[in-house]
Amino acid sequence: MTTTPVNTMNLDALIAELVGLEIITDPTQVAKLSQDYYNFSPVLQPQLAGKKGDLVVRAAGEAEVLRVAAACVKFRVPLTVRGAGTGNYGQCVPLNGGVILDLSSMQAIRWVKPGLACVEPGVKLANLDKKTREIGWEIRMAPSTYRTATIGGFIAGGSGGIGSITYGQLRDRGNLLAVRVVTMEDEPRVIELRGDEVQKVNHAYGVNGIITELEIPLGPAYPWAEWVVSFPDFMTAARFGQTLADSDGIIKKLISIHAWPVPTYFAALRSCIPEGSHCALLMVAESCLESLADLVKEYGGTVCQQKTAQEASHGMPLGEFSWNHTTLHARSVDPSLTYLQTLFPDDKNLKLVEHIYHHFADELMMHLEFFRVGGVARPAALQLVRYTTEARLNEIIAYHEAQGAFIFNPHTYILEDGGMKTINVEQLKFKEMVDPYGLLNPGKMRAWLER
Amino acid sequence: MTTTPVNTMNLDALIAELVGLEIITDPTQVAKLSQDYYNFSPVLQPQLAGKKGDLVVRAAGEAEVLRVAAACVKFRVPLTVRGAGTGNYGQCVPLNGGVILDLSSMQAIRWVKPGLACVEPGVKLANLDKKTREIGWEIRMAPSTYRTATIGGFIAGGSGGIGSITYGQLRDRGNLLAVRVVTMEDEPRVIELRGDEVQKVNHAYGVNGIITELEIPLGPAYPWAEWVVSFPDFMTAARFGQTLADSDGIIKKLISIHAWPVPTYFAALRSCIPEGSHCALLMVAESCLESLADLVKEYGGTVCQQKTAQEASHGMPLGEFSWNHTTLHARSVDPSLTYLQTLFPDDKNLKLVEHIYHHFADELMMHLEFFRVGGVARPAALQLVRYTTEARLNEIIAYHEAQGAFIFNPHTYILEDGGMKTINVEQLKFKEMVDPYGLLNPGKMRAWLER
Repeated sequence: MTTTPVNTMNLDALIAELVGLEIITDPTQVAKLSQDYYNFSPVLQPQLAGKKGDLVVRAAGEAEVLRVAAACVKFRVPLTVRGAGTGNYGQCVPLNGGVILDLSSMQAIRWVKPGLACVEPGVKLANLDKKTREIGWEIRMAPSTYRTATIGGFIAGGSGGIGSITYGQLRDRGNLLAVRVVTMEDEPRVIELRGDEVQKVNHAYGVNGIITELEIPLGPAYPWAEWVVSFPDFMTAARFGQTLADSDGIIKKLISIHAWPVPTYFAALRSCIPEGSHCALLMVAESCLESLADLVKEYGGTVCQQKTAQEASHGMPLGEFSWNHTTLHARSVDPSLTYLQTLFPDDKNLKLVEHIYHHFADELMMHLEFFRVGGVARPAALQLVRYTTEARLNEIIAYHEAQGAFIFNPHTYILEDGGMKTINVEQLKFKEMVDPYGLLNPGKMRAWLER
Repeated sequence: MTTTPVNTMNLDALIAELVGLEIITDPTQVAKLSQDYYNFSPVLQPQLAGKKGDLVVRAAGEAEVLRVAAACVKFRVPLTVRGAGTGNYGQCVPLNGGVILDLSSMQAIRWVKPGLACVEPGVKLANLDKKTREIGWEIRMAPSTYRTATIGGFIAGGSGGIGSITYGQLRDRGNLLAVRVVTMEDEPRVIELRGDEVQKVNHAYGVNGIITELEIPLGPAYPWAEWVVSFPDFMTAARFGQTLADSDGIIKKLISIHAWPVPTYFAALRSCIPEGSHCALLMVAESCLESLADLVKEYGGTVCQQKTAQEASHGMPLGEFSWNHTTLHARSVDPSLTYLQTLFPDDKNLKLVEHIYHHFADELMMHLEFFRVGGVARPAALQLVRYTTEARLNEIIAYHEAQGAFIFNPHTYILEDGGMKTINVEQLKFKEMVDPYGLLNPGKMRAWLER
């Protein structure tokens, strides 16, 4: 099944159908709102360059989303949902034009209670946090784009981040409680998915429903101190990270480990990190700092910078040097760099990390993020890669996989080819029901294309 | 070095020295205050029966503790510290008579702030919790004797319990922040140990210093719902427990799994658990119950009883059927029963649990408690044993060890022969400094006896 090509005729008719809604047709604006940060990938750059929607509709609420869905179905126009566009794999880049449905104006926070919040998808994570913190809670995890990313975009296109060292990943049971989705059936309707059912649309790039409301769990809002610790030896820094990750008595939110010369890309931190040193960027509950200091001492680390939670609330958050912000900073200095996303095996000795670190020497700059996978703290790597060719990049990926590391390939816009690898039957079945014409973000779901 | 035998002469002199303090000499009272719950062990029963102090001193504060310490040093009288006496290995049973120093009156809560509390050792855990909950916090972990045990006794004689599925064990860095201890030197003094230094006296049965104040970390006080879930198959119940333990998105405090016929010993729960069923006793944050219900469904469990946190605040807490309260209930029905304490290997498939469960059949009744060990959720077993002879008990222990399970032997009053196995050099060195005459709880520390 293919989507009807969007031609001028049905585009005009579509716009007429959507009278009263905020519609953007200015080509520059539409082009801008068709992009995300896929430019981190030299592989995706040529594939996605120039891809753009035909118009942007900025919906103000679920009723408007229903109207947009109905109009797109009526005229068989592709619809690609967008939040803040902070993804890195072209998740929200439309491959076949059509409507960009921008949900960033749907910012209602329906309610917040201890441990839970119900929100519209366009709420920015930082704004939600500000609200939930009023009653002592915070969002459990956030990407490094926390200040700009929307909750809907994070759920549909992300997987975890700062906070995942405690709460695991978005896909883990309990980290997304319910969603409302608008369908693309002949008569679009709203479906509520609760509990395990949410997996039908979780991390599905918006290919099988338009999320209009989310119920998410919250974590207690600790005052998070921010520390930068340096180590003369990379593997000592890495092992320090693993031990901190496994220290059940120390409450933490971020354990981000960077091999030299990664710290040279951190303009705002560089002066405090000694030349040639490897560093750990940490967010730890203030009440646990004495214990953290003991652990730093045990591993021979040097605390280069420490901020109380109060001090950390001003200026650039330490989290903005972690996860994929590391890549952002590195690429702002050297745009030829790219990155990988790797899950290392469950091995407290970090043998494969050590092997990879030495094996690729200068070609890869090691950057680890510790997070919990099925109850166990493991390192993910977002290694910086000195890119030469796509063939060489694939060689590097293949080498990792042959050694037993798992690559979440950030150089593909295909849902299954990233981290999923296999077809998600549940998501496919749901798409067959809610998007029979295949209009939602077409071209992203291999299962649909190849069924 | 041996302690001077306590004779009537120095006892009278000692009492004279302690004028003004609360002293108990009534033999029945003294005998009672020399006991703990070592009667769970048929091995310890004959070894500790009749052991008692010569008198009890109930200190009202650190200044009085210093006076008692000085007097005991002066007259070379053994001193054994006691809280509520809820231990199970004779931790506070005096082997050589002397003074029982009862700290249960030292109940001051010095301060409570977010994430931290500073208390005297005699504070009952439940009372401390009540106080910390006023500002939204609670103690991180507690034994099943939570309503009667003191914080000092828990630190000196315990290791973890309800809450350990999130925070690990007391010995984990960050779970005990500081202690003040009174020494037994010629001129007793107060030493403050902070951070890693606390390991010198942590879980040392009071052999190397008298704890007079503790600084402990707190956890956020979730409203804990209490669920009883039954399963037709034991290993399904066990695997459900492991999966819940590894579910980073579900906040929990207790995962206690009981093979049939253990539930028959739970008078207050028995009517709700189907005949022949195995059960899970759970404490989970109310905000996570929908996710828990999904997990129960996945494993084919049946929710037999559910209480909100509010409902659970009345009546017998579910925790009082877990950890060693399970043994208490079983022994109240059948006093011939005893138990073991076992740490199973880190194996998500629970193969050894399954083997042991089948291997001993009716001789052992399996009871698992999930907790975190070095960052990994693993099952501990407090198996109920149909006791025959000490030789057979030792055979059972040896079989477990040969198969790769670790036994924390509850049938010894020797510190190192329980869970520690090896000599703790740091604790020994500290004892050499603070208790040069070996007067503190003599006979419990192998390292001291054999040095």
